[in-house]
Amino acid sequence: MYQQPIFEGRTIMTPGPVEAHPAVLRQMVQPILGQFDPEFLKIMNEVKEMIKVPFGTKNKQAFAIDGTSRSGLEAALLALIEPGDKVLIPAYGRFAYLLGEICQRAQAEIVWLEKDWESPFEQSVVIEAIKEHQPKIVAMVHGETANAQMQPLDQIGAFCRENDVFFVVDMVATYGGIELKVDDWKVDIAIAGTQKCVSVPSGMSLITYNDRVEKYIQPRYQKELGLGSDEQSERYVRSNYLDLTQLQRYWGPERINHHTEATSMVYALHEGLRLLLLEGMENVYARHTKNDRILTESLEKMGLEIFGARETKMGTVIPVRIPEGIDGEEVRALLLDQFKIEIASSFGSLKGKIWRVGNMGYSSRQTNVLHFLSAFETVLKKVGYEFDYGVGSTYALEEYLK
Amino acid sequence: MYQQPIFEGRTIMTPGPVEAHPAVLRQMVQPILGQFDPEFLKIMNEVKEMIKVPFGTKNKQAFAIDGTSRSGLEAALLALIEPGDKVLIPAYGRFAYLLGEICQRAQAEIVWLEKDWESPFEQSVVIEAIKEHQPKIVAMVHGETANAQMQPLDQIGAFCRENDVFFVVDMVATYGGIELKVDDWKVDIAIAGTQKCVSVPSGMSLITYNDRVEKYIQPRYQKELGLGSDEQSERYVRSNYLDLTQLQRYWGPERINHHTEATSMVYALHEGLRLLLLEGMENVYARHTKNDRILTESLEKMGLEIFGARETKMGTVIPVRIPEGIDGEEVRALLLDQFKIEIASSFGSLKGKIWRVGNMGYSSRQTNVLHFLSAFETVLKKVGYEFDYGVGSTYALEEYLK
Repeated sequence: MYQQPIFEGRTIMTPGPVEAHPAVLRQMVQPILGQFDPEFLKIMNEVKEMIKVPFGTKNKQAFAIDGTSRSGLEAALLALIEPGDKVLIPAYGRFAYLLGEICQRAQAEIVWLEKDWESPFEQSVVIEAIKEHQPKIVAMVHGETANAQMQPLDQIGAFCRENDVFFVVDMVATYGGIELKVDDWKVDIAIAGTQKCVSVPSGMSLITYNDRVEKYIQPRYQKELGLGSDEQSERYVRSNYLDLTQLQRYWGPERINHHTEATSMVYALHEGLRLLLLEGMENVYARHTKNDRILTESLEKMGLEIFGARETKMGTVIPVRIPEGIDGEEVRALLLDQFKIEIASSFGSLKGKIWRVGNMGYSSRQTNVLHFLSAFETVLKKVGYEFDYGVGSTYALEEYLK
Repeated sequence: MYQQPIFEGRTIMTPGPVEAHPAVLRQMVQPILGQFDPEFLKIMNEVKEMIKVPFGTKNKQAFAIDGTSRSGLEAALLALIEPGDKVLIPAYGRFAYLLGEICQRAQAEIVWLEKDWESPFEQSVVIEAIKEHQPKIVAMVHGETANAQMQPLDQIGAFCRENDVFFVVDMVATYGGIELKVDDWKVDIAIAGTQKCVSVPSGMSLITYNDRVEKYIQPRYQKELGLGSDEQSERYVRSNYLDLTQLQRYWGPERINHHTEATSMVYALHEGLRLLLLEGMENVYARHTKNDRILTESLEKMGLEIFGARETKMGTVIPVRIPEGIDGEEVRALLLDQFKIEIASSFGSLKGKIWRVGNMGYSSRQTNVLHFLSAFETVLKKVGYEFDYGVGSTYALEEYLK
């Protein structure tokens, strides 16, 4: 017979999933409400409004999709792509290739713009590529968790708007931890998740899009066959589950019966967003910035090298080069097995070359930073890395005591 | 500023979502584990095994998908369908049209076999249609929540197997409440959800498929572009998020980094399935059968008519004809607003004609049945329905006291 698992908590210092806020988890214990129960509709409506704040948008459309972050990426791209449409994907890290993966499976024609993973693109380079290739859509990642680099977006957004190109941006790794300006940067569709800086368990994707997108996708709406065949479109979206035109009508006043909402996750999301607003977004961003600075400086005091361009480093991940002769996976295993602390490895060409230390959401707090640094020093000493033992953790403690 | 909602519980007697088991909800408060944390992988592996039991299968492949029930339907159909493939869909209720909706958007050629919603198909009728149309896939609903009718599957399954046709069955409304025999009935892919008889919140889909399907979909696997381009297939599945070939490798020993698992939902699912096994599947089914009988008989004592063929009525839903002159929505509103009891309306041609009373999972229990019947009698009396007031609830109480 299977037993109820006994959970020993973890100090999660990865770039997601991170520790859910205890108050968020407690909301998941609340009793189920029917998805069209007026009490639940009120919660949904509040969630719609709160989602907009960390995105920095006044868009009419903002809601959650019942799937992990990438379900929102796929919904966004499926809504815009029709077979053969050209999508430009500038790639400076792993998750651009996920955008490409989704576009390819949606039968788009993809134009790749690739570079090393040390830094993001100069915006002018992307703009030149748009001029050259005349894509219908530009799809980019705002913050790349694989290498902790962050892409400036404002000029690209402005150029897309002027030239009637759709600008789709993956903000999964920055939403709720770094200030976003979806409206100012002229992003047409932005996508985020719950399991990073919102401190909510994984399982939902957050999306917002502007009137321009809404107007474009409107004629693609086709009523679900089970609800009637009176609203048809030859250009219907190639998915039922991830059809933005239906999801919009599920979250909106029409309340079509599209799926059975994941109510407990919506309770959690409501609380996660509410706690961000309660802390105040400026304070939230300042907290992440401070912890990023202290982590980064402490690791450097230990003689470790931070990967990639510093001026474009994302504040929610610290990518640390694994020193020569050290087995990165051994260090990770010792941290997890002996200290219950989790940090991440990386992807592709960076696999085995860097550790990724997360600085996200509820996990971005003083106690976590101090616990991690102390444990990390102990483990690094144990595996033979030569440094001034104690220098990182005591530096961090001094900084917090200031 | 937004407030934390204050939840007043509901007695949910709909065909889903139903009340989550309190022990299930409590598991959602457990701390987050990383998705590749050995402790979490153990939970995932146990979930895989437990999922098989209510399906009645020894299939190697069984796992959960991070999306509501229909995400599993779409994943199943996308894995089998290539554009232009012929799918036969026998429809005796609303959810067959969801299958058709998904197939249409997947570019399949659909052959419809339609009938009234009073009863399911004679199996011979479906078999004749298979002979005539020679489809690649037959997609059916086992239990239709819209009209509470249940389809016998064994002969259709046997014929499909003999003729190399894939048999895909939606078991969302019966899984965990009615005995299923996926292997004996020769169902190739079966799909269920969490929000009905498993007493877990909505948000996950459960799926199992046999070696035949696994062998068929194997050459369709294409590695996600972000993980490498060394495994390509011209027949790749037209979705990243709902690609069964990738999901299998996420839940299997390869542990590809496909998405960030919804860990808290997996904890809940583990507990929901564990509680079913602990109660014993035979006892679970007997409980549903008993409550279905008492509900049905009590409603009939009140002079109400049960919709549809009795011998094929599904035990997890009681479809009640709304008496002449009674406003069905007024009754539902009084139940919800005054008693915090929720029952459902229906779809399509049955909208406004029947109420649907659910008998599922944790909601299928004596106290719920008694509370519902007492309240229902009071409300029906209030709206002017003429019957022997008290006859239904006292009958039910007598039956439970036996």
